[in-house]
Amino acid sequence: MEILKKRILKDGIVKDGNILKVDSFLNHQLDIVLLTQIAQEYKKRFANKHITKILTIEASGIGIGAIVAQQFNVPLLFAKKSKSSNIGDDLYTSVVSSYTYNTDYTITVSKKFLNLNEHILIIDDFLASGNALKGLIDVANQAGCTIEGLGIVIEKGFQSGGNYIRNLGYDLQSLAIIDNMDNNIITFKS
Amino acid sequence: MEILKKRILKDGIVKDGNILKVDSFLNHQLDIVLLTQIAQEYKKRFANKHITKILTIEASGIGIGAIVAQQFNVPLLFAKKSKSSNIGDDLYTSVVSSYTYNTDYTITVSKKFLNLNEHILIIDDFLASGNALKGLIDVANQAGCTIEGLGIVIEKGFQSGGNYIRNLGYDLQSLAIIDNMDNNIITFKS
Repeated sequence: MEILKKRILKDGIVKDGNILKVDSFLNHQLDIVLLTQIAQEYKKRFANKHITKILTIEASGIGIGAIVAQQFNVPLLFAKKSKSSNIGDDLYTSVVSSYTYNTDYTITVSKKFLNLNEHILIIDDFLASGNALKGLIDVANQAGCTIEGLGIVIEKGFQSGGNYIRNLGYDLQSLAIIDNMDNNIITFKS
Repeated sequence: MEILKKRILKDGIVKDGNILKVDSFLNHQLDIVLLTQIAQEYKKRFANKHITKILTIEASGIGIGAIVAQQFNVPLLFAKKSKSSNIGDDLYTSVVSSYTYNTDYTITVSKKFLNLNEHILIIDDFLASGNALKGLIDVANQAGCTIEGLGIVIEKGFQSGGNYIRNLGYDLQSLAIIDNMDNNIITFKS
């Protein structure tokens, strides 16, 4: 998605440790005009899929998830992050290892809102190691719902998450795949 | 807002301790059609205000904040919650006492994204004690920006936050103000 790649080149800031800061438009301050264009792009890419619900994870997935849900005219469901493993049995849970914070957390989704009949599109802002996505796939599979696809805004193509999830057979659509960020120069997979 | 009040009566669940669960449509699963109607209502109520940015707080403010930002055609900025008080000087911070979790946390907003020239509308899903809103007002005042108004989806009118903020002179618009939830019966201020 060219307009997104241009925006990353213009406003993205590369930090030590292969960190890409895009907090001016994607995950602290949100450019809703760009997010709407992103949502329209997903609508195009998943046009032949029957989607009944968007699933994402707090916090930075919620903004893009809401705009995507509006585009598909379906509800948004976001998984919550919990430090506690003492959780009620009315929840689907999955343990996620955080690369950024070097710790584990548990994601939770109320069983009331995911079931066999749902056809979901999983949305998130970033994909690197893929651990958060694997957690979302895990809760979706526990619920028995159909994963129609996964939509990611920015994938770090030099980390393993994207290929792992594609190799599981899922339709993963990343709108910008970063090939390399060495020496603060961002290049994309064509 | 009648359609919102009807939805609260239909799907809201009152729990011990004056807790109102609206997780089927507002803060876990999000009914984006309803949220769009809510955003249009704010657009009407703040029609004469010049708004340049929406400010909210993670996590449950982000969904409604994104849809409101879209309606006003401005960016969304969400304050982050941090347990750490060891925070860089490129951030505005404010300490918030949480009623729900009986603990303090620090909210942070990057100084880059709030300044003297911004005219903001503060959005959140719930208002009870008002501590989160007071934190958002505090960071906005540190930045010197103009607070044009505050839009709340559900206010617990029997708690002190709403009147405290109105008495400061702010234009606070709550779309449903709950008068009483005793014996699991929800009544609204007319």
